Amino acid sequence: MKPMPQFANTPEPPYLAVIFSSQRTEGDQGYSSTAERMVELAAQQPGFLGAESARDAEGFGITVSYWTDEGAIQAWKADLAHLAAQERGRSSWYAGFHVRVSKVERAYAMT
Amino acid sequence: MKPMPQFANTPEPPYLAVIFSSQRTEGDQGYSSTAERMVELAAQQPGFLGAESARDAEGFGITVSYWTDEGAIQAWKADLAHLAAQERGRSSWYAGFHVRVSKVERAYAMT
Repeated sequence: MKPMPQFANTPEPPYLAVIFSSQRTEGDQGYSSTAERMVELAAQQPGFLGAESARDAEGFGITVSYWTDEGAIQAWKADLAHLAAQERGRSSWYAGFHVRVSKVERAYAMT
Repeated sequence: MKPMPQFANTPEPPYLAVIFSSQRTEGDQGYSSTAERMVELAAQQPGFLGAESARDAEGFGITVSYWTDEGAIQAWKADLAHLAAQERGRSSWYAGFHVRVSKVERAYAMT
């Protein structure tokens, strides 16, 4: 079977998961390039364990990012480039979103 | 703004989230009709709080279902129609999947 890099290669639980579900507005408005950049930046953060993302043809998407601890999540939320992206997200890119921070307690997979 | 029924209208935390990420195989093979039926059945389960789902054009998808407690998750996992669907998922519909059971500790939204 070919590799499936879209899956996050997370360690044994416990770890944290940030579930970000969002509805995009219409038009790109600079979203795609910033989103790519944010994925690259997040991957460089201490405590980042991986992420998984899917968006459908109607612009509804879910991104789940995985982190070692709450401090890592807070540091990424406060990153300056990420703060600027969050602001554009609220003003332009998203018609709505939910953020849910959760603690993964058990996990299994078929790969 | 139009209603956004794709978002789950979850209560204040804590509650549980089952994060199911999957890569579909090619072709429908009965997947779509069963998936619809499973969403309907899940929504009738005691303890079900809602679900959000997105799948991209390459067949990678994330479904997050929200539940009141671990017993509700276990009961749904053991549902006979769902067990049959899980078996077809493993044998036919999914090239791979991850299941992560997590406890949502805090949440916020822009709607």
